[in-house]
Amino acid sequence: MGELMTSQIQGVVDSILADYTYEGNREVDKLDIFNKPSKKTVVSIVDKLLRIIFPGYVKDKTYRFYDIGNNLTVVIEDVAYNLTKQIAIALRYKGMTQNVEIDHVEDRAEQATLTLLKTIPKIREYIETDIDAIFEGDPAAESKAEVIFSYPGLFAISIHRIAHILYKMQIPIIPRVMAEYAHSKTGIEINPGAEIGKYFFIDHGTGIVVGETTIIGEHVKLYQGVTLGALSLKDGRKLQHKKRHPTIEDNVTIYSGASIMGGDTVIGKGSVIGGNVFITKSVAPGTKVSVKNQELRFDADKKAVEPVADENDETWFYII
Amino acid sequence: MGELMTSQIQGVVDSILADYTYEGNREVDKLDIFNKPSKKTVVSIVDKLLRIIFPGYVKDKTYRFYDIGNNLTVVIEDVAYNLTKQIAIALRYKGMTQNVEIDHVEDRAEQATLTLLKTIPKIREYIETDIDAIFEGDPAAESKAEVIFSYPGLFAISIHRIAHILYKMQIPIIPRVMAEYAHSKTGIEINPGAEIGKYFFIDHGTGIVVGETTIIGEHVKLYQGVTLGALSLKDGRKLQHKKRHPTIEDNVTIYSGASIMGGDTVIGKGSVIGGNVFITKSVAPGTKVSVKNQELRFDADKKAVEPVADENDETWFYII
Amino acid sequence: MGELMTSQIQGVVDSILADYTYEGNREVDKLDIFNKPSKKTVVSIVDKLLRIIFPGYVKDKTYRFYDIGNNLTVVIEDVAYNLTKQIAIALRYKGMTQNVEIDHVEDRAEQATLTLLKTIPKIREYIETDIDAIFEGDPAAESKAEVIFSYPGLFAISIHRIAHILYKMQIPIIPRVMAEYAHSKTGIEINPGAEIGKYFFIDHGTGIVVGETTIIGEHVKLYQGVTLGALSLKDGRKLQHKKRHPTIEDNVTIYSGASIMGGDTVIGKGSVIGGNVFITKSVAPGTKVSVKNQELRFDADKKAVEPVADENDETWFYII
Repeated sequence: MGELMTSQIQGVVDSILADYTYEGNREVDKLDIFNKPSKKTVVSIVDKLLRIIFPGYVKDKTYRFYDIGNNLTVVIEDVAYNLTKQIAIALRYKGMTQNVEIDHVEDRAEQATLTLLKTIPKIREYIETDIDAIFEGDPAAESKAEVIFSYPGLFAISIHRIAHILYKMQIPIIPRVMAEYAHSKTGIEINPGAEIGKYFFIDHGTGIVVGETTIIGEHVKLYQGVTLGALSLKDGRKLQHKKRHPTIEDNVTIYSGASIMGGDTVIGKGSVIGGNVFITKSVAPGTKVSVKNQELRFDADKKAVEPVADENDETWFYII
Repeated sequence: MGELMTSQIQGVVDSILADYTYEGNREVDKLDIFNKPSKKTVVSIVDKLLRIIFPGYVKDKTYRFYDIGNNLTVVIEDVAYNLTKQIAIALRYKGMTQNVEIDHVEDRAEQATLTLLKTIPKIREYIETDIDAIFEGDPAAESKAEVIFSYPGLFAISIHRIAHILYKMQIPIIPRVMAEYAHSKTGIEINPGAEIGKYFFIDHGTGIVVGETTIIGEHVKLYQGVTLGALSLKDGRKLQHKKRHPTIEDNVTIYSGASIMGGDTVIGKGSVIGGNVFITKSVAPGTKVSVKNQELRFDADKKAVEPVADENDETWFYII
Repeated sequence: MGELMTSQIQGVVDSILADYTYEGNREVDKLDIFNKPSKKTVVSIVDKLLRIIFPGYVKDKTYRFYDIGNNLTVVIEDVAYNLTKQIAIALRYKGMTQNVEIDHVEDRAEQATLTLLKTIPKIREYIETDIDAIFEGDPAAESKAEVIFSYPGLFAISIHRIAHILYKMQIPIIPRVMAEYAHSKTGIEINPGAEIGKYFFIDHGTGIVVGETTIIGEHVKLYQGVTLGALSLKDGRKLQHKKRHPTIEDNVTIYSGASIMGGDTVIGKGSVIGGNVFITKSVAPGTKVSVKNQELRFDADKKAVEPVADENDETWFYII
């Protein structure tokens, strides 16, 4: 380390230490790291749950697969121990920050973990239908194994089906960390609160946003860039816990870039929402909705090869 | 572990084990993990191939770079061994699931691996042109080194050029896993089937989808959110292996959010497709296509600072 | 390894080695790996800086958190040493590739690193306001801890606030590698050059692009898919270092999918830009801008359940 650095580094440390105790109860200054859930641990729990759900598809170098029963026991004990611990931390943290007493934290954490573990067969039943929906819907899929190995939509819905169980038991923070893990890997953001039926098909998926109070029926298909969103209000926090995202009934298909918004908006059974459609009202069952006319301008122009931004030619601006 | 958990965990294990042998030949119950490709191994093969392609840019702590020849030999032997193994597994798996005999699996796997390795100089030749295209096209790029280090578009097209070679030899699953690795890191989804010419320039890239049967010429530029997609049919699987995605000729530029669809759609040489344009028909060479009029409403309003959703004011709903 | 492979692998190695010395000074052939910054090291520096910024939120198994002062010293010395080294490499590399003499490389690198470290309290002050803005703006946020743990927008702006300091000191390559790390994890691409005020709120975020010369005031909100972009020119490189991205004044909200372009475009204080709006001109303060009419076509049709692509029915094509 150079002389300049050597002479100044202690000053840097001191000024940051001083900053940690800055007045004002700032969130960035909360140091109690062992009283907060660990993102890394939650992600590792998700990976282990996926291994339990897809026993033939997700490898884990820690566990060898000679006797399936022994191995399953080891993984489940691992998840049981760590998830209980993370949930307890999250519950206590919520109590602490909201200044309320949360009773029986350990029992509640253990109970929630057990409920999730007992729901695994049901989760696997739903996920099998999601695999079917993707395989049937995408001509590019060569096999169901390929769907499991390489479809981001399946990864996202699988994690959602886990996170949603914890969300329903009102476990704080952890479901959202799980959802964000899926979002980070896939570009698909499904809030853990969303209720999603069987045979859910997401294709491509990048840019999809499914809000917290969305309700989705069976056999629903979403393509990339679809938003199932909320209307904005002056004070966002007033909307907390109200239904502010749409209801999508069975057999609805929503093409890429479409936005459907509002808690009272219901897209009726079997409807098809075209690409880039923007909807804030309900749609009757069996309706096809499309953008009426996108008027295009076609200019035959040799210069088109090299477009030039020109203040006098309003139509020829582009995003780069 | 608490008493409740201790008393119930064996029951959980048993019910999941029972679920693994659920009747109905479900995909989630296929346990034969050693007969399926390993996603992790495929990803690690891709990383090693990138190291071979960019010998001065991708470090790998396993290999030191004293004698370039020795090191290259070690990496190539590693890829040769592991890729052959993964391809053989994928071929056997395909035979097994489709109930057909696949002959000479080991030989085919070895031959495919060798073909890919022998194509590396050609891949590097193409990638050098992609670097040129990005550097020339983006004023934010300070150096070609920056392009290699930090342009997601280059990462995606580099992996695509590898995966496409395997796709053309009809290797199942593995090319798609490679493509999905790129998608997960960049938000750019290029199906391994797409044929893409030299000097390919993707800028930003998040949300781009390039379908399986797309054909792209040289000097083509794509911006974020572009879809080169297919038309939907009642039964998606009937479209398998048919040309259902567009052809983009040389020197075409497609701005952000544009969608071009259909297997008969040809965008002629030198055309420019404006942002958010939605096209399902061919466009003659040298055409500029833009959305004719996006009529905007401007309201001067002090309340605009804090927009309020109002049932009586239809125009003021937003997506959140 | 099979016989075929064994007999041919040396030939493969030789042909790739020959390719590395291909005439023409290609970028892919630059082998001097120790003279280039390491992406992996830069990413690890970012992770350590985030740990310094959020001492109670980011764990690092290398460091235990018994005595906060000792630990902080260790992490800061680590960052000081490695960042100085990476910056020096980047400066030397720039000098080498642009064939200019860069004086006092070691001193400049040390000075730049120290400046960044001394700016950390200021960065933390800004990030605290970003946390506030997200928590106030999103009804789905249960606690500020949840915001830190799971909001991709906070992750992206935190890294941006680090990278921007280095950008302002004209450190090459490294700021962009940092920004691309955030982009890869979140789908949010903020060029390190962008100037962004306090209370910055990104929700969802996938697909956001903020260009190099963008200026953003305080209390600005961006939703997913927003582009703050540049106009295209025949020769992209001519635009280098010119202001080519918009200015967004205080209290502006920009809804999903909107695009605002051009270096002279100013969105006045308190304006609200609706979803999917495409703007290339300035907007007066306090203006609400929305797409006037998206004319939709509604077809009640039993067949809607299973849309069929039909050459004679132009309105019924979809993207898949």
